[in-house]
Amino acid sequence: MGLSAINECINNNYHDTSNEVNEQHIIDMFRISKENQEFEEEAENVINKIIKDFLLSENANSSAELKEVINNFECSRIPNNPINLLDYLKLLNDNVIAHATHVSSPRFIGHMTSSLPYFMKIMGKLLVSLNQNLVKAETSKVFTPYERQSLAMMHRLIYNFPEEFYDKHIQDNNSTLGIITSGGTIANLTALWCARNACLPPEGDFKGVEKEGLYNALLHYNYTGAVIIGPETMHYSFDKAADMLGIGEKNLIRVHVDNNNHIDLAELESTILKCKAQKKLIIAIVGVAGATDSGSIDPINDMADVANSAGIHFHVDAAWGGALIFSEKYKYKLAGLEKADSVTIDGHKQLYLPMGIGMVFFKNNLLAGNIEKNAQYIIRAGSFDLGRRSVEGSRSGTSLYLHTALHVLGLKGYEVLINEGITKAYYMADSIRSRPEFELLSYPETNILVYRFIPEEFRMQVKAGQVSRSENNIIDKYNETLQRTQRKVGKFFNSRTKVKTSLYGRGVQVVAIRSVIANPLTMKADIDAVLEDIIRISKVIVKD
Amino acid sequence: MGLSAINECINNNYHDTSNEVNEQHIIDMFRISKENQEFEEEAENVINKIIKDFLLSENANSSAELKEVINNFECSRIPNNPINLLDYLKLLNDNVIAHATHVSSPRFIGHMTSSLPYFMKIMGKLLVSLNQNLVKAETSKVFTPYERQSLAMMHRLIYNFPEEFYDKHIQDNNSTLGIITSGGTIANLTALWCARNACLPPEGDFKGVEKEGLYNALLHYNYTGAVIIGPETMHYSFDKAADMLGIGEKNLIRVHVDNNNHIDLAELESTILKCKAQKKLIIAIVGVAGATDSGSIDPINDMADVANSAGIHFHVDAAWGGALIFSEKYKYKLAGLEKADSVTIDGHKQLYLPMGIGMVFFKNNLLAGNIEKNAQYIIRAGSFDLGRRSVEGSRSGTSLYLHTALHVLGLKGYEVLINEGITKAYYMADSIRSRPEFELLSYPETNILVYRFIPEEFRMQVKAGQVSRSENNIIDKYNETLQRTQRKVGKFFNSRTKVKTSLYGRGVQVVAIRSVIANPLTMKADIDAVLEDIIRISKVIVKD
Repeated sequence: MGLSAINECINNNYHDTSNEVNEQHIIDMFRISKENQEFEEEAENVINKIIKDFLLSENANSSAELKEVINNFECSRIPNNPINLLDYLKLLNDNVIAHATHVSSPRFIGHMTSSLPYFMKIMGKLLVSLNQNLVKAETSKVFTPYERQSLAMMHRLIYNFPEEFYDKHIQDNNSTLGIITSGGTIANLTALWCARNACLPPEGDFKGVEKEGLYNALLHYNYTGAVIIGPETMHYSFDKAADMLGIGEKNLIRVHVDNNNHIDLAELESTILKCKAQKKLIIAIVGVAGATDSGSIDPINDMADVANSAGIHFHVDAAWGGALIFSEKYKYKLAGLEKADSVTIDGHKQLYLPMGIGMVFFKNNLLAGNIEKNAQYIIRAGSFDLGRRSVEGSRSGTSLYLHTALHVLGLKGYEVLINEGITKAYYMADSIRSRPEFELLSYPETNILVYRFIPEEFRMQVKAGQVSRSENNIIDKYNETLQRTQRKVGKFFNSRTKVKTSLYGRGVQVVAIRSVIANPLTMKADIDAVLEDIIRISKVIVKD
Repeated sequence: MGLSAINECINNNYHDTSNEVNEQHIIDMFRISKENQEFEEEAENVINKIIKDFLLSENANSSAELKEVINNFECSRIPNNPINLLDYLKLLNDNVIAHATHVSSPRFIGHMTSSLPYFMKIMGKLLVSLNQNLVKAETSKVFTPYERQSLAMMHRLIYNFPEEFYDKHIQDNNSTLGIITSGGTIANLTALWCARNACLPPEGDFKGVEKEGLYNALLHYNYTGAVIIGPETMHYSFDKAADMLGIGEKNLIRVHVDNNNHIDLAELESTILKCKAQKKLIIAIVGVAGATDSGSIDPINDMADVANSAGIHFHVDAAWGGALIFSEKYKYKLAGLEKADSVTIDGHKQLYLPMGIGMVFFKNNLLAGNIEKNAQYIIRAGSFDLGRRSVEGSRSGTSLYLHTALHVLGLKGYEVLINEGITKAYYMADSIRSRPEFELLSYPETNILVYRFIPEEFRMQVKAGQVSRSENNIIDKYNETLQRTQRKVGKFFNSRTKVKTSLYGRGVQVVAIRSVIANPLTMKADIDAVLEDIIRISKVIVKD
């Protein structure tokens, strides 16, 4: 069935108002009946086949252009009558799955989404079947303490407080050691929301920023504005948070980074002094542990000391790099993380959990009290309900993934995965360096690489470290074309970004090819093949 | 294995540092190998058994106290070595699933979470297997237009613009007809964020609230503050949004509601005039279509006219009631919804999708441009990436659930489900009215009921409409005990709330038992049984 057939099928159905739908048949769809089970088994066999084919695909992508694919989803009418599930699955397989991105392919190394442990599929089925709602103990019961346990385990790995601390707080409804979110963006937002409210608290008749709003809060405390300070490598979720929280993107101050993409500590300190002199409230200092672009890690320990001595909330966005705490070998890179007031770690990145799970952790178990809300029908004050302190309301029990993985992989299992990723990234970096066709833009600190292809005519200049702006522009265009072509062909996938490099003068920005080596199935042979593929494409481009 | 065994098992493992973990074994967990498949099948058989037992449970809950359950999740150590999956599943089954809430039980009628169509389980498995990331077309490809199509279908149902509108905008990357979120809270937050930014735009040197923050924006436009106005029945997510967006909870103005829990339109109009006179910016007027407490629906059409003539953004929180648009019979209750500037509808409520999917829709396809963010490595300006305009960043392809259900249930299938819910709610209301033991606190507009048990000694007063405050206090305590006892026994589950009732003088708040009739498998016999159970419990309480 062709792509446009989906539309045709639905259109026909839409106009078919003759048949009355069988009411009992609809209600029976919710029943655990023998009939449903037989039909479900048949459908599941189809789905299992779809899954197997999908997961075994070696290519990173189908070669179809997004534009071609888009044209086939133009019908805006919901079909009137139910479509048979098996017919729908056929349409889904032919038209959707066939062009879904093979994020689990060992040769899809362009983004932070990769493959999952085999048992996640069936845990996904279990999660949907249980359909717990973590907003409230009444709709999740045991899942509430189960989630709290998962979070406490992660908290202990980060902060390593004495055993007594965890005994006391792990299941204390007044303590919040961490919050599960739908992703890192909400985790960062949650941390900054807590920080903002904590530094503009109630005082006398003033009820605090939570009740009175930012305008009145800044007036009350005699500030001329509010800012957040971090390195220029901060993720765009901080722009979102600064905007949403009423602070303004202009007041998200991005401090320069050095050659290694680490925040300039002297500039950080002078920025703090400047803001204080201007009577601006510094809501938080943000450190980045695993920049999205390059995987670089800020000097967390030094930043923590700066923030601490200035009395400012220190948040670390370790959405990507946080998982290094599992590695005895590499956790030194996160030294000082335990001094952070709040830490974001994504489950769906290097914890290899399915998409849709982030986490934020708090050193102070009471900090999240600053965002507490209550309601009569739900999340009553003093209750055990997790929804009292979170950005989100109703949400699913994704801690099932976290708790399962922490046990079935274990601390040592995660260590293996983290060490693998970094070891292979180092291999790739060395491989890039050894090939005259490439320039490595910075040596990886975690498992993300930024590099670029250098057309032959510029290799001398690169070697000498003397590439002019106009030459860089040509190289930029070349790399854009390379990356697009590789993606279009679909066998391999690297992403593309712009990074500031100090190799050719401070603040010069160049187009980079970006590889993320996180899939445990990506072997050294795949890495070599990806690089060879770029070289091969460069020859084709030259010919054109 | 007892509950504490989970801790013991993990503790033992934690101390067992002797065994080296098998690195290859960990990496192999990501492989689609014959070995894994065999093991996976074995594990899946166990999970299928767990699911079946869980879904067939008639009781709403296990009878174990939450306190007892909590005590068994007190270990805060991640096990050192991997635990065998089958062992973990045994622990999970005995200690977690055994005490999970049976949200799909026909006798669990206390909250908005109910059962799902049978095919959702296997779609859950498919979703995790595909693991698409909708933040960017590069990590989801076809899922981007597929999600846009699902949203356009819903948009058309709400707004019913001409066919040409959808032809033009359904796949136009500059248009945002709707956004999929993790739930209704984020949907409401998104709508108000868009509204706030739209009414404090750039002007001359002023770069708009997005860049400059709320403090400078209000100063620039000469406002003395910013407010959001809606009925007192507004969900607590509006408190969260008002706090997060820097507006302040005090500036979320809650207008009184009448006997039917509908906003007092005269008070709404006078509030608008008052705010304008005080030079306060009214960011949005909020209408509620399906209040969380009582299911009531505000006079949307009248509110839209008021908001429209005052030039104010009108948002409708139809998280619960929005699904009534599928019903030819009942959609009149949402008359005027098409005039709303933004509408929230939850997928995981009356669209019967798995937990974790909400939606917000926009009348103006460009409104969400007010929250657009871009980054080099992702969501580049002008790209097709959905993450450019959303609160969340990386997120999963839950549109798979929506698109599937819209096709496999169809418009008419959803109509059956909505009509069923309301018909049964009316049945329950009549049933409550016909029994002298109960007082119905308001006739249901959707499928949520609030009522209370009246101890015999107060029935005369209730009949006469003359219950004193102190008598109400006694009845309140009685109903609290009733609801708690019913929940504890675990056979049935109703929730509890406090509702304002005008039956005994304006603004009197009483404790109510709350039933949500949404599970298609909840039959009239279940409804009778739930009420009989309350009467039975009342007799036991009296005896004590």
